[in-house]
Amino acid sequence: MENVKVIIWGLGAMGGGVADMLLTKKGVDIVGVAGRGKKIGTSMYDYIKTEKGDREDVLIQAAEDVIKPGAADIVILCTDSFTKNAFPRLKFIMEQGINVITSAEEMAYPAAQNPDLAEELDKIAKANGVSCLGTGINPGHIMDLLVLVMTGCMTDVKHILSRRVNSLSPFGPAVMEEQGIGISVDEFMKRKADGSMAGHVGFAESVGMMAEGLGLCVEDFSQDMNPIATDVDRKSPYGFAAAGSCAGVSMTADAKLCNGMEIRMEHPQQIEPEQVGVQTGDYVIIEGTPAVNMVNSPEVEGGLGTIAMCANMIPQVINAEPGLHTMITLPIPRALMGDVRDRICPDKKIVK
Amino acid sequence: MENVKVIIWGLGAMGGGVADMLLTKKGVDIVGVAGRGKKIGTSMYDYIKTEKGDREDVLIQAAEDVIKPGAADIVILCTDSFTKNAFPRLKFIMEQGINVITSAEEMAYPAAQNPDLAEELDKIAKANGVSCLGTGINPGHIMDLLVLVMTGCMTDVKHILSRRVNSLSPFGPAVMEEQGIGISVDEFMKRKADGSMAGHVGFAESVGMMAEGLGLCVEDFSQDMNPIATDVDRKSPYGFAAAGSCAGVSMTADAKLCNGMEIRMEHPQQIEPEQVGVQTGDYVIIEGTPAVNMVNSPEVEGGLGTIAMCANMIPQVINAEPGLHTMITLPIPRALMGDVRDRICPDKKIVK
Ligand SMILES: NC(=O)c1ccc[n+]([C@@H]2O[C@H](COP(=O)([O-])OP(=O)(O)OC[C@H]3O[C@@H](n4cnc5c(N)ncnc54)[C@H](OP(=O)(O)O)[C@@H]3O)[C@@H](O)[C@H]2O)c1
Ligand SMILES: NC(=O)c1ccc[n+]([C@@H]2O[C@H](COP(=O)([O-])OP(=O)(O)OC[C@H]3O[C@@H](n4cnc5c(N)ncnc54)[C@H](OP(=O)(O)O)[C@@H]3O)[C@@H](O)[C@H]2O)c1
Repeated sequence: MENVKVIIWGLGAMGGGVADMLLTKKGVDIVGVAGRGKKIGTSMYDYIKTEKGDREDVLIQAAEDVIKPGAADIVILCTDSFTKNAFPRLKFIMEQGINVITSAEEMAYPAAQNPDLAEELDKIAKANGVSCLGTGINPGHIMDLLVLVMTGCMTDVKHILSRRVNSLSPFGPAVMEEQGIGISVDEFMKRKADGSMAGHVGFAESVGMMAEGLGLCVEDFSQDMNPIATDVDRKSPYGFAAAGSCAGVSMTADAKLCNGMEIRMEHPQQIEPEQVGVQTGDYVIIEGTPAVNMVNSPEVEGGLGTIAMCANMIPQVINAEPGLHTMITLPIPRALMGDVRDRICPDKKIVK
Repeated sequence: MENVKVIIWGLGAMGGGVADMLLTKKGVDIVGVAGRGKKIGTSMYDYIKTEKGDREDVLIQAAEDVIKPGAADIVILCTDSFTKNAFPRLKFIMEQGINVITSAEEMAYPAAQNPDLAEELDKIAKANGVSCLGTGINPGHIMDLLVLVMTGCMTDVKHILSRRVNSLSPFGPAVMEEQGIGISVDEFMKRKADGSMAGHVGFAESVGMMAEGLGLCVEDFSQDMNPIATDVDRKSPYGFAAAGSCAGVSMTADAKLCNGMEIRMEHPQQIEPEQVGVQTGDYVIIEGTPAVNMVNSPEVEGGLGTIAMCANMIPQVINAEPGLHTMITLPIPRALMGDVRDRICPDKKIVK
């Protein structure tokens, strides 16, 4: 079998990480990168950690010039967070007859906020005989998929608390700015009010996925965002929060499902949590029979986790029945450690 | 759509628990129970926790009298641990054109120890257009599936340690006897040598499933069993171990995969672990990028967990492509909380 052929669209932190990861794997080739602006015509290796060495070069091209029928088995799209923005790109990819995985948060469960676009994507996928999946660490794994997997050992579920306490210290200037690191609490409240505090995108999607997974639906959903004001100065590689200012954002959501069951989501993100004795970790706390009381500490690092999920789901998406998929319609995620070709059904291969 | 119709074969602790659980769910009916000996002709409600109330009675019948073409959508088979013993029953069920889930430990990954029978079962399933799955808490979830799901967020995996520290206190006389509770260390060693110490069945299966899941294969596998001698008297509802005698069994396994990676399995089971300061729990400890350090404490109780897994996988198995499945070929397990019919593809329904 030909190696699995992958095109990466959007060579930022996630797309670049997927490239670095796939270059270490067997049976898979990066056959193209789609970018824009000044990146076009330059080498993929200028933007990733892996050295080119004696590998063949991969030049960044405009999407139309690289994503063509028969060019690849799958595109990994890492350009967007929102379904509305990703939609024309997903449509274009699938109309070329190619499968797609995207890291766009809302695409982890697009039916939550864009049911019409979700339906449209499902139609486009089926019409072109390909599959589409949104995934990542969160939404996509830690606060939703992992919770569902644990309910698999339960005869009854009464209440779900999904909590991810993570450190923002590994992230760069863009994230420091988005999350308001170092701004005053007043400034935070102003930005929250005018909608310019980014916070976490994905609670509605995680809740929607969990509800469908359990065979229920969402009746009520609300979310909130509050500053994590720090008592002490905190300094991370790219961020600084003086005592009294914001060291992070605490997001919460509360949902009520159609059977009366409640889901609570808690996701405080901050720089240098260790400095104030906050233990980071991923918590799955489920009331029911039997109860679940699980913690992974420290948390799975979000960047690496998202890179891994996008790459590790490649075989499942290529092998899937055509259509729009979510993490609950496909076989479980797991690391790609062998030859990727061994996991591909021959009749699902596009580049034969 | 007609309710999902289920037949239970083997109304012991697991089969009875599945019956109790399904009686609380919507859109699913228990239409038959297969048993043997004196149970035949008596009521299912004589052996389970749920009161009959004004439900229609379900009488226990011989398998041949109840498992017939068109009688049910699925059979839950809870009679055996070993593939060899379950095989004729699985064959019989599938030849009646009915899907099957079994709690038999070896059936969680039958290719590990009975590759020929696994192949044969796959053929029988396909010839009859039905699906077959072995599942349970362990093997089936905690020490294998959950580990794989966590590797899904990893770009590279270096070493896996899967540890389940559980209490045997909830279990009855049969388990106390099987696990040698209260016997002397000498007696344990004698029973270990002559092969009459049961211990845990499933390490070879868990390791096989993890290897396949990662796209690798098993090169070396060995397991061992040692007594957990107690310093103090320990007493559980059905067991007693005097100081100096065996309060449980510690099983371990070591496997080497074809890429050199090692998997270590640790499963100490004992009565009253709290009495000696042992904290029970399910541990997933993975070296790699990023590392995983997860614990669910206390452990998921094995009986309830197995009952839940057998029942919760019903939709996935009915909807599956015909063939022999494992937990890595089907969508993720999760609790059945809504109407079971909502999760069934209409064209996969047997009892229309
Ligand atoms: N689900 C999850 O758990 C999860 C986790 C992490 C990230 N994400 C999401 O995934 C997306 C990517 O994350 P990131 O960290 O990689 O962001 P990033 O570092 O900002 O990278 C985005 C890349 O996309 C490129 N791009 C954007 N629009 C494009 C277009 N129309 N054509 C070609 N290239 C385009 C950008 O190119 P330029 O450099 O030319 O602007 C940039 O290289 C983000 O929206 C992020 O929120 C989701
Ligand atoms: N994968 C896992 O994690 C997991 C977890 C728990 C259990 N298991 C396995 O699942 C199996 C069932 O467990 P259990 O606790 O329910 O055992 P159990 O309480 O001993 O029940 C077994 C039942 O099967 C019946 N049976 C046996 N052979 C039969 C036959 N040929 N025809 C009809 N009925 C038959 C027995 O009937 P009689 O009463 O008439 O003898 C009994 O009711 C065991 O092998 C166990 O090891 C697996």
